Order: sequence, then C-alpha cells, then structure tokens
Amino acid sequence: MTRYLNLAEYISSRIEQGLYGPGERLPSVRALSLEHGVSLTTVQQAYRVLESSGLAIPKPKSGYFVPAGRRLPELPKMGRPSLRPVDISQWDLVQDLMRQEQNANAIQLGCGMPDTTAPTLKPLLTALARISRRSDSPSLQYNHLQGVLTLREQIARLGVDSGCRLTPAEIVVTSGCQEALSIAIRALCEPGDIVAIASPCFHGIIQLLKAAGLKALEIPTDPVTGISLEAMEMALEQWPIKAIQLTPNCNNPLGYIMPDDRKRAMIRLAQRYDVPIIEDDIYGDLAFRYPRPRTLKSFDDDGRVLLCSSFSKTLAPGLRIGWIAPGRYLPQVLHMKYVGSGTTATQPQLAVAEFIAKGHYLPHLRRMRKQYQRHRDLMTEWVSRYLPEGTRVSKPQGGFTLWVELPDEFDTYTLNRLLEAEDIQIANGNIFSAAGKYRNCLRLNFAGVPNRKIEQAINKIGLAVAQLLPA
Amino acid sequence: MTRYLNLAEYISSRIEQGLYGPGERLPSVRALSLEHGVSLTTVQQAYRVLESSGLAIPKPKSGYFVPAGRRLPELPKMGRPSLRPVDISQWDLVQDLMRQEQNANAIQLGCGMPDTTAPTLKPLLTALARISRRSDSPSLQYNHLQGVLTLREQIARLGVDSGCRLTPAEIVVTSGCQEALSIAIRALCEPGDIVAIASPCFHGIIQLLKAAGLKALEIPTDPVTGISLEAMEMALEQWPIKAIQLTPNCNNPLGYIMPDDRKRAMIRLAQRYDVPIIEDDIYGDLAFRYPRPRTLKSFDDDGRVLLCSSFSKTLAPGLRIGWIAPGRYLPQVLHMKYVGSGTTATQPQLAVAEFIAKGHYLPHLRRMRKQYQRHRDLMTEWVSRYLPEGTRVSKPQGGFTLWVELPDEFDTYTLNRLLEAEDIQIANGNIFSAAGKYRNCLRLNFAGVPNRKIEQAINKIGLAVAQLLPA
Ligand SMILES: Cc1ncc(COP(=O)(O)O)c(C=O)c1O
Ligand SMILES: Cc1ncc(COP(=O)(O)O)c(C=O)c1O
Repeated sequence: MTRYLNLAEYISSRIEQGLYGPGERLPSVRALSLEHGVSLTTVQQAYRVLESSGLAIPKPKSGYFVPAGRRLPELPKMGRPSLRPVDISQWDLVQDLMRQEQNANAIQLGCGMPDTTAPTLKPLLTALARISRRSDSPSLQYNHLQGVLTLREQIARLGVDSGCRLTPAEIVVTSGCQEALSIAIRALCEPGDIVAIASPCFHGIIQLLKAAGLKALEIPTDPVTGISLEAMEMALEQWPIKAIQLTPNCNNPLGYIMPDDRKRAMIRLAQRYDVPIIEDDIYGDLAFRYPRPRTLKSFDDDGRVLLCSSFSKTLAPGLRIGWIAPGRYLPQVLHMKYVGSGTTATQPQLAVAEFIAKGHYLPHLRRMRKQYQRHRDLMTEWVSRYLPEGTRVSKPQGGFTLWVELPDEFDTYTLNRLLEAEDIQIANGNIFSAAGKYRNCLRLNFAGVPNRKIEQAINKIGLAVAQLLPA
Repeated sequence: MTRYLNLAEYISSRIEQGLYGPGERLPSVRALSLEHGVSLTTVQQAYRVLESSGLAIPKPKSGYFVPAGRRLPELPKMGRPSLRPVDISQWDLVQDLMRQEQNANAIQLGCGMPDTTAPTLKPLLTALARISRRSDSPSLQYNHLQGVLTLREQIARLGVDSGCRLTPAEIVVTSGCQEALSIAIRALCEPGDIVAIASPCFHGIIQLLKAAGLKALEIPTDPVTGISLEAMEMALEQWPIKAIQLTPNCNNPLGYIMPDDRKRAMIRLAQRYDVPIIEDDIYGDLAFRYPRPRTLKSFDDDGRVLLCSSFSKTLAPGLRIGWIAPGRYLPQVLHMKYVGSGTTATQPQLAVAEFIAKGHYLPHLRRMRKQYQRHRDLMTEWVSRYLPEGTRVSKPQGGFTLWVELPDEFDTYTLNRLLEAEDIQIANGNIFSAAGKYRNCLRLNFAGVPNRKIEQAINKIGLAVAQLLPA
C-alpha cells in the first residue's frame, strides 16, 4: 500500500463521516503534507485519486472541494420477511446467471468471483507447481478424511483473528464453502424441516434448502446491523425451527457486519431455543476494518455453531478449498463428508497450507481489503451518478458485492434481458429470496479493477433502468 | 509390455484353463520359442516369472511342470440376501479402517488405493505443474458447473470403448466417484426409500444410503456372474424399489464382470419395473481382458442409467476427479451438484484432459492392467499357500481387490485386532454389507508391487487365522 493511497483513504473516510460536507473545502495540500509528514507530491497524488473517484473536485487557485451535488445514496430498505416457511423456487434464474458467466465477452457484474490477478497471489501458483513436481507426489493419493493436517493447523491459527480457539481436530476441510454448508444442512435437517435465513440471503444456501426438501423462513434483515433479533425471536416462538443460517460478516448480498453485541445476543437466543446456527464466514477476512470482525462461533460456548468458510473469496475459488468447524456436530459432519465426496483433493490443500505458513496470506488480505474498499467507493459513486434518483445502494463493510434497490414496482428480470443483449451480466435480486422477493433489486460485483468499460456498463445499466421505469 | 511377460501370461492363462493339470509337464523352452517366434532367452525369462509366482516349477533336466499340489482355491459362496430392506450400521468399522489408513508404518491391504508410482503417470504431474505456472492461471477461477469442456470431451471419447455414445453436454464432472454416487442417490431418492444393492457391496455406497436415510435391500450375488437377476426380479415384485445400484464391471469387492447377456437382461428388468439404475464403473477401465467390458449404460436406450465413475483407480484418487452421465436425470443431477459443492476444481480437470488428449491414458491403462493381473495371480497364490485349507478366494477379472472367505463361524473383527498390532491393515467383510454380514470375509488390496513384506504379511494373516479358527 503506497503512501498516497493511504492518504486518499484517510481523506475519503473523513468525507464519509461527514467531517467535510457537500460543497465544503477540503484541507490544503500544504496542510496535509505537514500534518501527515509526507511530500507535497504525495498529497497531490492522493487528491488525484479522490478526484478520479468523484470524491473531490479541484477549483483553480482555491484547492479541492467535496462535490456540491454529492449526496450519498440512501441505504436499501429493511429486508422483508416471509409470513410462513416457504418452498423454494428460482433455480431456473440461478442457472441463467451461471449460463451468462460462461459468456467470455460479457462484463461480469453478477457473479461472486474475486480478483485473482494480484501479484500477492503468485506464491500460491508457485507452491502448486512445486508440489506437482515432487517425485513422491503426495497429491496423487487419498488423504485424511478431515483434510491435510498442515492446512488444518493454519486454519486453526487464523481462527484466532476472529476470536476463535480451534484445534485442527475440530476442523474438516471441504470442497469449498458450498460443500461445508451442504454438509451442515444435511447433518442437521430432514426433509420438511424449517430453516431460518436472513432476507435477502445468498442463493447457494436457498437452493441447498430446496434440494434438501427443506422450508425456508425468511427473517427481516437490516442493511446495517443484520438479521432482526426481534423477528428471529418471534419466529423461534412460532415455528419449530431446526437450524438458523447466518452470514453475519460482510454479508452477501447486503455487506453488513453484525455488531458484536447483536452477535452475542443471537447466540443467547439460539441457546434459549436450543437451535444450532450454521455460520457462513466466507467474506469475514475481507472486512475493510482491521482487526477483522469476530465470528458468531467466537461467542459460542456450547458447540452449537457450525462455522463454514473457504478460501474462494480471499484466494481463489478454483481451488475449491473450504472448511467447517462443526462444534458438537463433528461426528455427523464427518459421516456426511465421507458419503458426499470422500476426502478433499490433496494438492491444493498442501499449496494453501504452504502459502499461509510462509506468511503470504495476511499481506495478500491487506492488499485485497484496500483494493475492494476503493472499488466499493468508486462503484457506489458510479451507481449514484448513472442510476436514476431514488436508487438505494448498500454500503458494504467488506467483500465485493453491492446491493442496489430500485423502486418497488421495478422488475430486474426485464432489465436483465435488455442487458444480456449488451453483454452485461448482473444478478437478479429475486434469486436472493426463497419466495422470489427483491425483483426490484440487483447485485453488482466490484472485485475487478474498475475501468472505463465497467463505468460504461454502469452507465448502460442506468439508461436501461431509466427506460424501464414507469413514467 | 515386454515379450517375456506376454508369453508368461499366455502360459498362465493356459494353466488356468486347465490345459495343463497339476503335476503335468509344460511345453519345452524350444517348443515355445518356435511356436511364438521368440528367442530361447525370452522363453526362459517367461518361465522364471511363472516360477516366482508359483505357477511353474523347474525339474532339473526335464523342464517346467505345473506344481503337483496346485489346486486353485474355491470361489466364494453366493452372496447372501437380506430378507427385507434394512437400516444400515457399520459406520464405526469404516472409520476404523480409515484411521488405520493413516498409520504410515502399516502394510495397507485394506484400502482401495491404486499404485501411483508407475512412470506412465509422470506426464500427469508435468501437466499439473505446467498449468499451475501459467500466468493467466485458469486454475484460480470458478469454471462451468458441468466441468471443464475439454475434459468432458475426452470422457465422452473414452466412453466409446465401453460401448457408449455420450456427448460432453450429457456429462457432469464431480469430486470423485463418491460425489457422483451421492448426487445420483440424492437426485432419485427421499428418506425411507428402498435401494436394491448387490451383496456384498462397496461400503461407500452402503454408508451413503445410511446418511440419506434410505433402506438397503441386499440382492444375492454370484462371485462370477454378478447380481442374481432372478432374485432381483423377485425383489422388484415384492418391494417398491426406488433405485438399483450396481457395479457390474470388475466389481468391488468380488471382482466379477457381469456377462453382456445378463447386463442386457438387467436393463430390460429395470425397464419393465421402471426403475433407474445407478451404475458404478470406477474399475471398468482396469478389466484384465481387452477390449474392456461394456457398461450397463451402453445397453440403456431410455436414459434410465446414471453412469458414475472417476479417475481415482485408473490414475490417482488424490485428484478427486470423477463424473456422472445421468441420462434423463441431468436436470436434477445439476441441481444437486450445484448445492452439494458447486463447481469442481479446475486445475486437475485441465491436467487430466491434457493427459488423455496427448495419448498418455491408454498406454498407462495397458501397463496397470497387466501389472494388476500379475499381482492378482501372485496374491491368490500367497493366500492359498498361507491361509488354511478351505479358504475361498475370488478371481477378480479386473481392478485390484481380492475377496477372501473363511469358514462361516470365523470373525474377522478379532482377526483385525490381532493384525493391527502387527501393523497389517485389512478390510473387514462386514462393512460390505448393510446388515453386517460377511464377518467371515476380508478384502485384500493387491495394487502395490508385491514384495517380501507383503508376502510375510499374508503369511502372518494365515497364522493369525489358523490361531483363531475353532479347533
Ligand atoms: C455467502 C457465500 N457462501 C458460500 C459461497 C460458496 O463458496 P465456495 O465457492 O467456497 O463454495 C459463496 C460464493 O458465492 C458465498 O457468496
Ligand atoms: C466401487 C467404488 N466406487 C466408488 C469409489 C469412490 O471413488 P472416488 O475415490 O473416486 O470417490 C470407490 C473407492 O474406493 C469404489 O471402490
């Protein structure tokens, strides 16, 4: 991270905190240079970054100003509940999304892919290549059902950063976070059971419930603090809920981080009603703030949280390396892992373990966190510039997805058809609901390095939306 | 394959067909040299191979003879049925087996690992390393849910050898054959359903039924021709069977190849009762005879066979690359794949595709088939030499597992405890039954290059068995 980028971030966070309002003058180049002990050039570079992301405008001879017209877009409204547990639809729309992902010409704004081009990822490829070349080729044979020990040791060590004390014996390596979630659900539930989920919720989880013959109960969710505890308590009173699934950190799609006191309260609630929690922490290491947020698991004192995660968002999804720390459900989880896919591939486990052990993981995270935060600001700026007045936008605290809410009567399904013709891929809001809500919302990926083409795509989205909006 | 090994195999097959009985004189070195147009040295080398596997003994000045005491051990008895569908136990014993697999000092005769040390496998490691080094690193990103296209093309091409016409669009790549089986079962069945299986049957399938809340109906199975069609028909009459699972080629554990007319009849039966068949062909490419046997799928004209397989036995299990060709059940299978683990890791798919496309697969298979056939002969020889009279032994037609049947009252569980102390790992027979039958049987792996240590291990097994046999 260079000095000028650090400084640019410092200033932009001040603007966001409201220290400098719309139209106000920002500190002079000289003042900042003195205050931060950096050169004038560094400050000028920082201002140029802010300028290009629309956060500062230069006025000749009088310095930099916060844009007068700049209003932060409003946050999305509270997520809506389902009145009763529902059977799940929308699989065809998820398939549509995946089909579009295969279009190499498309600007991919709908998918969940991280940026895998960072140079800090190089040592991982080197490790993969070296392990392949070893003549005793450990990558060729079956390994421990729980996963390679050196990797589980590293995962346990990283757990400390989220407040968890884990041992390698409590961890099971999986084929991505999706397998971890699938194993958790199957270890806990039988067809017909009810699972409480946030609304909106990652479509991989919703489809999993569908495939397992379960019913989803959608709990209203606040775009800043996460799932409503009050609504959750009411639901627990009213329905025989078999498990609760939550993604409390850098939520996909809303981007919130549940505050610690609410996490603690959530655990107490689960204890009171004796319900297990399946926690998805896949984006937790990509929180923009440091130190990273705690997991629900870190507040869990009776083994009821099944913590699921993977390196798909932090390193690379193609590795398919995830894990689950299932607490008291370890025996059932091991059985499900054995029958579901047997052991996990050996070579990528060894490579990831080596990458972390050699100290490459944290610097890579640092870089990606900063990068994604910058992208978020720029993407938010573009969305508020190009989409019609009244568009609401989430303010993700980590990860790389933005939730965009259009007027209630808007239908992103039609929008999607228009955009597909333009080779622009977005994710329809209603795949994030068990009952097909959020047709007026869409999710945008901002992982990739922002460029002119992406800006143009957002511009096109704005034009298409305007065209479709009821007059 | 060298000339002398070819010749040795030719002679041994003649002995097995009974052309040369116990104590009889084998053709002279000169006669064979003339007949086969090879040098005298080649014939002598061939005879030395036969000598060392106990199939020929030299008598000074009079040539080679079939050992007088040589009696081929009897085949195992017909597999026993369950009288009604049963709930499944034995998971603790499967876990025991896996625990022992982690003992690096043990002689591993219980596991299902292939030999991965053959030089013909080297190009696979080279491909893995090269793909990792590519700067655009396709291995890092998510890929098509059905798997990498180039791999599906190669799998479709190989299908021709087993009589199948498949297109890449009909194939879904999975994390090993276990995931393929798991997806197939979950796509077809709901808790409480009955699945018909062979008896004995691979424990991975039995545990899968257990985890999915299904009941197993064990159908008696002949150690030479496979599952009894008569018993199967009776079962289909009597019970609402939801699916049939079969491993007709180089069966694990019995080693039979179901004859083609029985395969055809099996398909007709499934059509008559309108039941889908989950076919496991994981060892099919390792049949000792050439061309390899046909799959049930190749007789299937209405899409009711879900063909499952992997490269775990033919190449390397640590890759975790398998596939399923699910016929008319493709939509359900894709949904299960998506929710179960998402896409399959990219890099090993690319490497396997390259390995096959460059023509390395078939020569590797040729080598392994010959190797495993030689090992089978030697292992059979050792078992009949060292285990007590009356021990029955399967005669596998492919693959690398031997099924050994001891007197009915014998309990391999106690045997296993004795052997564990000696660092010898075997597979208990009763994990191959849903109802805990076959306590008097064990399965031995003969993939590894036979050596003095393995022979000693078989000797020790023999001694332990003798010690435990009721007087
Ligand atoms: C919240 C969440 N959980 C799980 C997954 C699946 O992750 P993986 O690719 O590791 O299976 C995703 C991927 O999009 C996700 O966004
Ligand atoms: C008959 C049979 N099917 C499936 C499997 C599982 O194969 P994979 O390792 O490809 O998941 C095995 C492995 O032992 C097997 O023997």
